This record gives sequence, C-alpha cells and structure tokens, in this order.
Amino acid sequence: MSKLLIVGTVAFDAIETPFGKTDKILGGAATYIGLSASQFNVKSAIVSVVGEDFPQEHMDLLTNNGIDIQGIEVVKGGKTFFWSGKYHNDLNTRDTLDTQLNVLADFNPVVPEDFKDSEIVMLGNLHPLVQLSVLEQVNNPKLVVLDTMNFWMDNALEDLKKVISKVDVITINDEEARQLTDEHSLVRAARKIEKMGPKYVVIKKGEHGALLFHKDQIFFAPALPLEEVFDPTGAGDTFAGGFTGYLAQSEDISFENMKNAVIYGSSLASFCVEKFGTERMESLKHQELESRLQEFQSLTQFDIELTPTKTL
Amino acid sequence: MSKLLIVGTVAFDAIETPFGKTDKILGGAATYIGLSASQFNVKSAIVSVVGEDFPQEHMDLLTNNGIDIQGIEVVKGGKTFFWSGKYHNDLNTRDTLDTQLNVLADFNPVVPEDFKDSEIVMLGNLHPLVQLSVLEQVNNPKLVVLDTMNFWMDNALEDLKKVISKVDVITINDEEARQLTDEHSLVRAARKIEKMGPKYVVIKKGEHGALLFHKDQIFFAPALPLEEVFDPTGAGDTFAGGFTGYLAQSEDISFENMKNAVIYGSSLASFCVEKFGTERMESLKHQELESRLQEFQSLTQFDIELTPTKTL
Repeated sequence: MSKLLIVGTVAFDAIETPFGKTDKILGGAATYIGLSASQFNVKSAIVSVVGEDFPQEHMDLLTNNGIDIQGIEVVKGGKTFFWSGKYHNDLNTRDTLDTQLNVLADFNPVVPEDFKDSEIVMLGNLHPLVQLSVLEQVNNPKLVVLDTMNFWMDNALEDLKKVISKVDVITINDEEARQLTDEHSLVRAARKIEKMGPKYVVIKKGEHGALLFHKDQIFFAPALPLEEVFDPTGAGDTFAGGFTGYLAQSEDISFENMKNAVIYGSSLASFCVEKFGTERMESLKHQELESRLQEFQSLTQFDIELTPTKTL
Repeated sequence: MSKLLIVGTVAFDAIETPFGKTDKILGGAATYIGLSASQFNVKSAIVSVVGEDFPQEHMDLLTNNGIDIQGIEVVKGGKTFFWSGKYHNDLNTRDTLDTQLNVLADFNPVVPEDFKDSEIVMLGNLHPLVQLSVLEQVNNPKLVVLDTMNFWMDNALEDLKKVISKVDVITINDEEARQLTDEHSLVRAARKIEKMGPKYVVIKKGEHGALLFHKDQIFFAPALPLEEVFDPTGAGDTFAGGFTGYLAQSEDISFENMKNAVIYGSSLASFCVEKFGTERMESLKHQELESRLQEFQSLTQFDIELTPTKTL
C-alpha cells in the first residue's frame, strides 16, 4: 500500500447555487482530495492549517476516513480560511463573494516525519511557494501531481512555473491551460505544458470530461451526463483525490493505468456534485462507486469491427 | 445493401475562418451527408434542387462517389442556394453574411421511383415542410433520421414539431436541444425530445463530442482532440452521413449498433473540419477512416478491473 501525501486547504465554505445556500460548511481542496482518496486502500495524510474555530467533528471525519491529520496545524487563536461563492444559473461560472485567508496567510507547511517517504504527493491548489516547500521536505516520491488555478497565474506566475517544472502530472482546467500557454487548441496547450516540465497533463473540462495527455498519446474520460448538478464545489479536487488515490492503491503509474485513474477521478467527481459541499462524499459507499464505474463503461465502450475496404 | 435516401441542400458556400477565405465553393447539407455516407457500401440518392449555374463537375463528383442524382432537380434559368458566413476566432460561433435562397424558395422535392422503398431516410436540414413532403413519398422506411437547426425553431416551430413526431432519430446540437425543450440539463432535454416522438436522440456538442440517448441508456462519443480545426462547415452533416451510411451498410438499427454509428459519424466529422468545405471529404480514403477509428478506440477504451471492497 502506497503512502499518499496531500497538501491543500482545509477550510470553511459558504456556497450559493440556484438550488439553495449553505452557512459555513466544511470545505477546502485537501478535504475533498482526502475524502475522495479514502475510497481506496491508501495510507494518506493531509498537510494543512486551520484555526482554533475548526470543529473537532470535522477533524474526526477525516480521521474516521483513515486520513492522518498530524500534519494539520491548529493555530491557537487563529481563524480558519473562509471562502464564499455564488454560482450562476449554468453552474459553470461563479462569483467569489468573500475570501478570508486568516491562518492561511502565514502557513508554513510541515510534512510529518513518517510521510516524508510518501510514494505519491498531491499538491492541491495553494500558493506555489507552499507547494514548493512541501516538495523540498519529501524524499524522492515516485509521482508528484500538481493542481493549480488561474489565480496563481495572475498573481504568482514565476513561482508557479517553478513548481510546474518539478512535477510529473499537472491537473488544470481548459481555460487555465489556454491562459498558461496562450494556445486555444488543448492539444497544443498540453504539448506546451509538457515542455514546462510535467510528463503527464490532465485537462479538466467540467461537464465535458477530462483529457489525459502524454507525449503523442491522448485519453479522454467523459463526465457522466447528470440530470442535475447540484453544487460543483470540490469537483476538481475530488477528481484529483480519485486520480491519486487509485494510483497509490494500484502502485502502477504507467500511462495505461493513469487512464483508469482518470476514470476513477471522473466517477468520484460525478458523486461530489450531487449534494452541497462534502455531503455526498461523506456518505459514499464503495459499492456505489463500483456501479458508477459500470455506467462509465457502458457510456463509452463500443465494439467496432473494422469494415472491409469498400468496393463500389 | 440498404438504400439510403438523403434530402437536403446542394449549394454554394463562401466561408471565412481565421485561417483564410473561399470564393463560392460546393456546399450544402445533402452534399456533405452524401459524401460522408459514400464511405460505406450503400446505395444512396440525394433529393435536392440546384440552379442552372451549378457546374457539371460538382454533379460528377457526387456521381463518382456512387450517389444517385436523378432526384436533384435542375431549375432552368435558376440560381443555386448560396450561403456565406464568417467564423469567429474560437470557431464555435459564426455570423451569416449572406443567404440567397434562390431555387430553394420554391423547392418541391420529388423522390425518385426506385428510392421510394429506401430502408433509411436522412432528412437533412431544410424547411420542415419539405422534410415532411419527402416522408409522405416513401414507403415504410425502417429508420428515419432528422437533422434540423434553431432557425426552424424560431420560424416554423409547429411544422418542425410535426416532423419531429414522425421520425425515429433526431440529431440536434446542445444549444438547440436546450432551446427546443427549455431544459438546461441535456439528460432532461433528451427525455423531453423523446416524448415528442423520436426513440433515439443524438445531441451534438461540437468539439465536446456527441451523446446518444435511448430510454434510460446513454452513449457518449468524444470528438477527436485536434491540433487545429480549420473549417467547421459541414461537420454536423458529415456526422449525419456517417451515422446513416454506417447503419445502412450494416443493416442493423439496434442501440448497440447505433453506438458504432455515432463513432463512425464522429470520425468522419473529424476529417471534414481539417480543410475548407468538402475538400478533405473528397480526398478521404477508407484506410484513413480505419486508422482514425483506431485512434478513437485508444482515446476512449480503458480496462478497469473493479476493485475489491476496501478494508481499512
């Protein structure tokens, strides 16, 4: 069983969608990644920071899902990172209503001693310098996966490029890939990103699925067509958690197996959006995941016998 | 070998994309459908209308591809339908610069005697009353496929609903499906459209692929990720031609086989957009199509062994 080290936010979110709104609920990239990865047989730990206002029940939720929390610093008298956002009617776009960095502003990540030899490191969305600091504390991981967002392209591009140059896999959404490379074609964008460092590029297209690029090979996983997306928050992180969790469990980081990891990530993300926040991921049974994988198979698998050359 | 009857425009197009522009070139829905279907062993005919200005070489092109043209009326002294459009930089949207209906304004379709027993009828994009007239002239086809567009929803909705109620399959793009049903979710939109008549609903999402719906089953075919889309004109018609051409050749209209038809349609459309107008389809060799099908297979096929229930 591989060790999976996760760095990212553990936070409070307040979310408004066309279907309702929440008060402060559990959120954060590392939370979603950890819960998603906990569907697999892995030894995982989160490196993050919270304030004294962070309830014990949330910590217990992580622990009960087999996630090591000794790397989550609790700042005495500090307040937990808070994000509030409102989704537009199409659920593809959102406005940030409020961001309170709080304890995140001075976060110095410390990797627990017994996770310094983690085989897989998942750098969730955070300041690139924090991601770099985690990388400096680990010993030769087999696979480093980076998630990031346009905010860091706008505000810390040079630092971001430095961390991009050091990772094996990057997950990024389509618009961010275009912004990073100034290429409209995702094929060209992925090629340019590979030249920046990562050997594998995952481009997430939301309801339009995800593409995995490696040299001249491409794999595509659709998103499951859903009657209703309830709350997209955390879908990308849940994808990343499924991707890395599956790779850690299977101990196989070949391109062929990454295809499966992309399918697992997509399946898990399709659950995440069914309810507010982490609610659906908290209740998710492994058996439900297995059935959904079968839906993915019937959604995409076909059996064409290549036809004989036509004769007119 | 099944007979495939195609009704649609045979026309002149003048196209401008970010990569260049053309003078009047061969275009029209039926042209693209016919050329695409000619990749298969089918006996096909086009029902359409052109003016006296339509060059013999274009007629020869259709004939040389095995398409029966006796149903293409040539109006003495008339001018051929002309459309001119300019694509925006993202190639997903376009402005119509000019539309000259010409001989299309008074088109009365006449189905040739030996195609009245066609097993498959492809109603290409045209006024719904013209599509209905063709349907009234054929004897119990096994499968009727309808393509249409938002223009008819805006201008002839009641006629369009009548033809929709009489077909087996509809192909429609995502925005049009939403407009027709007032549903944002494509799953819900497809369900509503099935209630209007068609047993099968194909929703085309351009660069994001195509979905095939039938009762509670869904199949998804991605679009091939291309480095560059050169000219999207005719891609939807080429898809329809591949879809119906393959079904006609295989003489199997089951849902399982329609999955393959969607893959063939998507493969053919991926060629169409590589050059201006019909150029790429005119030069396409069957062997090239076979290689691209293999690309589609490696793009989407995965092999997940469902994992044992986790034990923590």
